Amino acid sequence: MPKISDKGQCMPSSPIRKLVPFAEAAKKRGVKVYHLNIGQPDIVTPQVALDAIRNCDEKVIEYSHSAGNESYREGLANYYKGIGIDITKDDIIITTGGSEAIINAMMVCLNPGDEIIIPEPFYTNYNAFALQAGVKVVPIKTTIENDFALPSIEEFEKLITPKTKAIMICNPNNPTGYLYSEAELESLRQIILKHDLYLFADEVYREFCYDGNDHISCMNLKGIENNVVLMDSVSKRYSMCGVRIGAIISRNKEVMNAALRFGQSRLCPPFYGQLAAEAALETPDSYFTDVYDEYIARRNCMVDGLNAIPGVYCPKPKGAFYTVVKLPIDDSDRFAQWLLEEFNYEGQTVMVAPATGFYATPGMGKDEVRMAYVLKIDDLKGAVKCLEEALKVYPGTKR
Amino acid sequence: MPKISDKGQCMPSSPIRKLVPFAEAAKKRGVKVYHLNIGQPDIVTPQVALDAIRNCDEKVIEYSHSAGNESYREGLANYYKGIGIDITKDDIIITTGGSEAIINAMMVCLNPGDEIIIPEPFYTNYNAFALQAGVKVVPIKTTIENDFALPSIEEFEKLITPKTKAIMICNPNNPTGYLYSEAELESLRQIILKHDLYLFADEVYREFCYDGNDHISCMNLKGIENNVVLMDSVSKRYSMCGVRIGAIISRNKEVMNAALRFGQSRLCPPFYGQLAAEAALETPDSYFTDVYDEYIARRNCMVDGLNAIPGVYCPKPKGAFYTVVKLPIDDSDRFAQWLLEEFNYEGQTVMVAPATGFYATPGMGKDEVRMAYVLKIDDLKGAVKCLEEALKVYPGTKR
Repeated sequence: MPKISDKGQCMPSSPIRKLVPFAEAAKKRGVKVYHLNIGQPDIVTPQVALDAIRNCDEKVIEYSHSAGNESYREGLANYYKGIGIDITKDDIIITTGGSEAIINAMMVCLNPGDEIIIPEPFYTNYNAFALQAGVKVVPIKTTIENDFALPSIEEFEKLITPKTKAIMICNPNNPTGYLYSEAELESLRQIILKHDLYLFADEVYREFCYDGNDHISCMNLKGIENNVVLMDSVSKRYSMCGVRIGAIISRNKEVMNAALRFGQSRLCPPFYGQLAAEAALETPDSYFTDVYDEYIARRNCMVDGLNAIPGVYCPKPKGAFYTVVKLPIDDSDRFAQWLLEEFNYEGQTVMVAPATGFYATPGMGKDEVRMAYVLKIDDLKGAVKCLEEALKVYPGTKR
Repeated sequence: MPKISDKGQCMPSSPIRKLVPFAEAAKKRGVKVYHLNIGQPDIVTPQVALDAIRNCDEKVIEYSHSAGNESYREGLANYYKGIGIDITKDDIIITTGGSEAIINAMMVCLNPGDEIIIPEPFYTNYNAFALQAGVKVVPIKTTIENDFALPSIEEFEKLITPKTKAIMICNPNNPTGYLYSEAELESLRQIILKHDLYLFADEVYREFCYDGNDHISCMNLKGIENNVVLMDSVSKRYSMCGVRIGAIISRNKEVMNAALRFGQSRLCPPFYGQLAAEAALETPDSYFTDVYDEYIARRNCMVDGLNAIPGVYCPKPKGAFYTVVKLPIDDSDRFAQWLLEEFNYEGQTVMVAPATGFYATPGMGKDEVRMAYVLKIDDLKGAVKCLEEALKVYPGTKR
């Protein structure tokens, strides 16, 4: 029997995945599980998108253009213009989810062995994409004490080597919910310019910025137009994670030309997903207002509830729909499993994502969990109550 | 401006892509172009699949399981049982098109620098997937004089090195339409067993076998159950190339375990595509009978028409819907471009795929083109007539 590859052996399974069987077992025992572990919103997909699918009268579901349908790319360019990002359809390649945008950007811009600096904690799958591309992730530490603010230029420069080819940020951030400020992005711009690096910007949560804070896109940082590669996705914006439509966007023609050839190799992004995503461009403003109000209420409910628990600290995130919470516990992986395996409060428990999975540095995140406020207010209240009661009896609670 | 990667620079653009602007220009001049250059059938998608999409009343288009919906995998396992391949849903991971199945299989099974032997001519994008995985394609020559039959064990063994980890075949073959015989697959089985290699089997055209010949799946070769990785796709079977649904299938648990972790990194295959593909499992037999009859008629029409042209040789393929044709010309790339740029017969011309794009060995395929019989009989007749007239006046015709 032939051996599998090194990549096949090393490809990580996230700590959340390891918890799934315990969640399923809890449900079988009749325990209600509040899922705060994943970014799968319960928000309905815009009706215009669902209608476009239901009304589709195409008879032969053909390959589309490898860069995505032209009409969709034109519509998407208009969407970006509307939010102050001046690009054309030729700066856009539609991808199969944001995932493909990230892995293709890595493959197009970095050689195996090259390094990419990413503030940690970061979205777990960045590790998986880097592994596939043979790229080395170099984490730069951010801390809950500092609300996960961007490290200083000096901290970045300590990590820059001749192998460093890119810095990647997620803004607003998954898992922390942190929204980078103008000053932070200006620092980043200076580092990118000085060292002529790529800046990979994952901005899939840009519609989710709270408390009057504006989102500043890396696409609008001056003087680094050819360095910035934007990764986008419709998954969160329109609550349609399953359609698998994203985009890779850059003004760097050489990058886009290569990304198109990568795109040609896999023929095209999904037809129905593109149909839904193009229709979703016509989503009425009221949809976003409702969603926004809902998330604000959810965030406040969850964050305030958490901070009222003794020993718990939760920053108030300004974006996305996640927060990393510091808990008075010994080990977040053990705690998350214990919640599902041994605990329930009035027949209910909560599933959280151990923050260890979001750090590249071993040992980090052991007293933190990521919680996604993607459930209805009443469920969030139930989940917070469970957590409060759990911390009273969990054997690893630090008192 | 930072440099793009070596992979970004080397990723090929297929010779067909280079012809697209010439085809577009011809259409702008009012010339009718018969597209025999791609495997995009004009056959309608099964109504059951289209209906499933139109009747979908899902309100939140969520992530699905990373391995694909369980109900779809169960249905697919039944489909395989029905064609004599005994597997369960756990041996199947749904992928985003056959493309993802191939690239993930390469990444899971081969290390960068490892070698994979593939009979040439072969599907161009195998090169692109190998480049992404850092894998070296070692072509083994097959010839039109021999109808593209599989080379002997001795020929294979000349190419096997310590770096060889896999052999890949496409059966029935794209681009040649060749269907491997029981004896050929037995040879292959012996090589795989002797050298303990992976056998990658791309069998996406298995429903298209003609003249009473049965398709023999590599999944049914005895004694190499843990070596075979099957790549499949619904694109051709149900004429729904745009849904982007394929599968990676193996009885090798270690391979499947790693492939699942690769699948988890990109979250899930497309929701709507899975919906259409699962519904398509209920496609009535009459659909396939009609399609089969249509392709037989098309093949006979095209092959007979081509062989009636002086100096042209076209084997009669036993599978798929392609054939590689030998033409009395100097340079298939030049000829294909000339057809679009300078030639028309009564306002019509034909777009073919230069066979050079299907060979890894430089210089091969210069007097061959691939033609896909994916058009209606009358259009195929028109296309063959164009080719006949073109060869009379093309400056590079060898007389």
